[in-house]
Amino acid sequence: MPQKIVIIGANASGIEAASAARKKDRTAEITLLTNEKIVGYSRCGLPFVISGVISQFKELVVYPPAYFQMLKLNLLTQTTALTINTTEKTVLIQTFEDATKTIIYDKLIIATGAEPFIPSIKGNGKLGILYLRSIEDGEKIDAAIKTGAKSAIIMGAGLIGLELGVALIERGVQVTVVEMAPHILPQMLDADMAKLVQEQLEHKGMKILLNRTVEEILGEDKVSAIKASGEVFTADMFLSAFGVRANTKLAVASGIPLGETRAIKTSSSMETDVKDVYAVGDCAETSHLITHKPVCPQLGTVAVRQGKVAGTNAGGVNSQFIGVLASAITRLFDIEVGSTGINETCAIKNHIEVVVGSISSKTKADYYPSSKSIKVKLIVEKKSEQIIGAQIVGGEEVTQRINAISFAIQKQMTVRELAKADTAYAPPMNETWEPMVLAAEIALMKLR
Amino acid sequence: MPQKIVIIGANASGIEAASAARKKDRTAEITLLTNEKIVGYSRCGLPFVISGVISQFKELVVYPPAYFQMLKLNLLTQTTALTINTTEKTVLIQTFEDATKTIIYDKLIIATGAEPFIPSIKGNGKLGILYLRSIEDGEKIDAAIKTGAKSAIIMGAGLIGLELGVALIERGVQVTVVEMAPHILPQMLDADMAKLVQEQLEHKGMKILLNRTVEEILGEDKVSAIKASGEVFTADMFLSAFGVRANTKLAVASGIPLGETRAIKTSSSMETDVKDVYAVGDCAETSHLITHKPVCPQLGTVAVRQGKVAGTNAGGVNSQFIGVLASAITRLFDIEVGSTGINETCAIKNHIEVVVGSISSKTKADYYPSSKSIKVKLIVEKKSEQIIGAQIVGGEEVTQRINAISFAIQKQMTVRELAKADTAYAPPMNETWEPMVLAAEIALMKLR
Repeated sequence: MPQKIVIIGANASGIEAASAARKKDRTAEITLLTNEKIVGYSRCGLPFVISGVISQFKELVVYPPAYFQMLKLNLLTQTTALTINTTEKTVLIQTFEDATKTIIYDKLIIATGAEPFIPSIKGNGKLGILYLRSIEDGEKIDAAIKTGAKSAIIMGAGLIGLELGVALIERGVQVTVVEMAPHILPQMLDADMAKLVQEQLEHKGMKILLNRTVEEILGEDKVSAIKASGEVFTADMFLSAFGVRANTKLAVASGIPLGETRAIKTSSSMETDVKDVYAVGDCAETSHLITHKPVCPQLGTVAVRQGKVAGTNAGGVNSQFIGVLASAITRLFDIEVGSTGINETCAIKNHIEVVVGSISSKTKADYYPSSKSIKVKLIVEKKSEQIIGAQIVGGEEVTQRINAISFAIQKQMTVRELAKADTAYAPPMNETWEPMVLAAEIALMKLR
Repeated sequence: MPQKIVIIGANASGIEAASAARKKDRTAEITLLTNEKIVGYSRCGLPFVISGVISQFKELVVYPPAYFQMLKLNLLTQTTALTINTTEKTVLIQTFEDATKTIIYDKLIIATGAEPFIPSIKGNGKLGILYLRSIEDGEKIDAAIKTGAKSAIIMGAGLIGLELGVALIERGVQVTVVEMAPHILPQMLDADMAKLVQEQLEHKGMKILLNRTVEEILGEDKVSAIKASGEVFTADMFLSAFGVRANTKLAVASGIPLGETRAIKTSSSMETDVKDVYAVGDCAETSHLITHKPVCPQLGTVAVRQGKVAGTNAGGVNSQFIGVLASAITRLFDIEVGSTGINETCAIKNHIEVVVGSISSKTKADYYPSSKSIKVKLIVEKKSEQIIGAQIVGGEEVTQRINAISFAIQKQMTVRELAKADTAYAPPMNETWEPMVLAAEIALMKLR
């Protein structure tokens, strides 16, 4: 009898899991269910529809219905998983037509994602606070701009907050970002690198207020202002970008254990503590390759990689997830910002003694026109001399440098080895001495 | 007494050697001598002056006189090293004023570079054949275009030949490239990848004739046509891009041994077989990290890395050159072409059994505007499953992918490890699944 694979969630990790399972098991009955109406779209693309670079939200759909048909995946949209019975191996679902139904699984993959989070401050239940998580959320923001919103307060200077801020400025909206931390992108960057990015954003007109804790949402039923560190800010739009939290309600209700990060605990097979139940993507806890601590990085690339591992295992072929370096990249106006591994702040927190090599360079030969600035910061573990992190901010060619350092970290490359690396050079593309190599040289000097 | 370091040659590797020696030995007397008039310029930049991207040849000078003064380097231009006496440790030089003089060295670094080469065919001594090696060569080509040359035959479809071809087309010259090999860029690429590049070049108007051996240079004193595989080709300009050969005359005359490649034999310290005499850059033989065979890759990045090693050693601090992967990159019109490690052809020649993973992908998310094509070809050693080479052709973001694979090769990453790599993703910069990772997946399928 063909085995039954049920996947709860039908975005990045869920669909990847389904596809991987299908590749390994040609006969399995694979069912994906999601409470969303539109499935298989790229969340990471949402800011670019708001900015106008992409003309319509529906263009973000990367998996059209034909994809599900081709792979013989049974897709149930607007369907909610109510509870999981892990003993009986069933899921109670509520369909679009409001019927409840019990479906059986041999392998279950939970890909319920994450949801925007507002801290428990006064007034946090007020209407009118916007988020950017789904297409529906994006449509609301777009509608607000179209109906005349001219100013916005964004609460949070993480990736989503800043990408949203850029998009709004590109639509002509005045943007003020309020951040609790002493610098922007506090998860990705150290203060020195964040400052570089902040200067660029401010230069483009983004107002950024740091060390400001949002204390209260003001207004009658509907938000009309916020209070942050004692000061009241008014605007036409209020956007919550405090971050997202793993969506674990179903798991908790079904007795599937969470981990330290309050995301669903998983093994290296992406299996939860309950046999034959996997968890992947933004709702799943995983381990960090450097700190070996549990983390929940909530990145699209991690989601698809985990989905593939869980789907492969569900399909009957052993696959292991090696952990994350949380390599991340974004473009904010004309600059690219990337990081991989750990930063100095994280190293200190984990009692890892490090040396740092930073270098400012150019993206083309010095004499070549339209060369842009780039800064590379390498984090090196003092004891092992291994590279354990990097942050790069530059006008172009940042992404693949982050990937290059990610490969180096994965293979435990020492800073001495990086200083000897064989890099490619041509005047329109880079300098003779690759900045990553120069940063390694600088770190080396501190080790000698 | 301060030691005397003499460096013959004052471009990429020579100046790098001098700079490295100065860093390690603050008191040494460091002398650079060169027969060129203009020193410290970027040869790799020459095609871009011809194309007009860079307005003047003098802009290519990356080391101005002030640099030599700052580092207290004694620079003798238009000065020829006539012979080296390795017993007495002296160099007989001929200065600009035509005086001969003997200078003493404690450490000598030979950085005499390479020179354009024409095969010994009939008529190869005829006047009017142009090359592109020095600024003077570049000025001659520029002058020919300015005085009305409308068509050009380029002999050789290697890096220089094609970069020159692109530059000439950008100046409105009709270009025909004649290549002996069955595909273009025969050192860098396999036939399948070369074909992709060729199509793009032809699309831009470059005429490319393969499998054509230049048999004769025709004309009275001056070239007026060439004969290739029996056919006669006429044009206004004739450019030799057959390749370059290590400039070893001085070394040979001084009893310094050459290696298998007919370049100067060196150890991993970049020392020749003669004590205290080093050789670096385009005149020096080195070893390949994959084949462990002697090679002379004649690349700018290799030159500077070797210069640094020799200079550091001459300055009294031990430094080793690890060998080369010959990572190389070029941009030809709108496409970037890169390679690192070995290609399939080279693997076959070296009896290395390989599997290949190739993938065509995009440089941005599918829905993101102005996404460009990219193709990644990975070469994997079957036995060890290690990545030993890559070729990438794409509209953008090729260089740092080549560097990423170079790091992977240096650290003996297996294709299984690459398939699990933690890559960064954002819609304006790449696809969720990084093409390098997908290429690894494809290679893996052939290993299973």
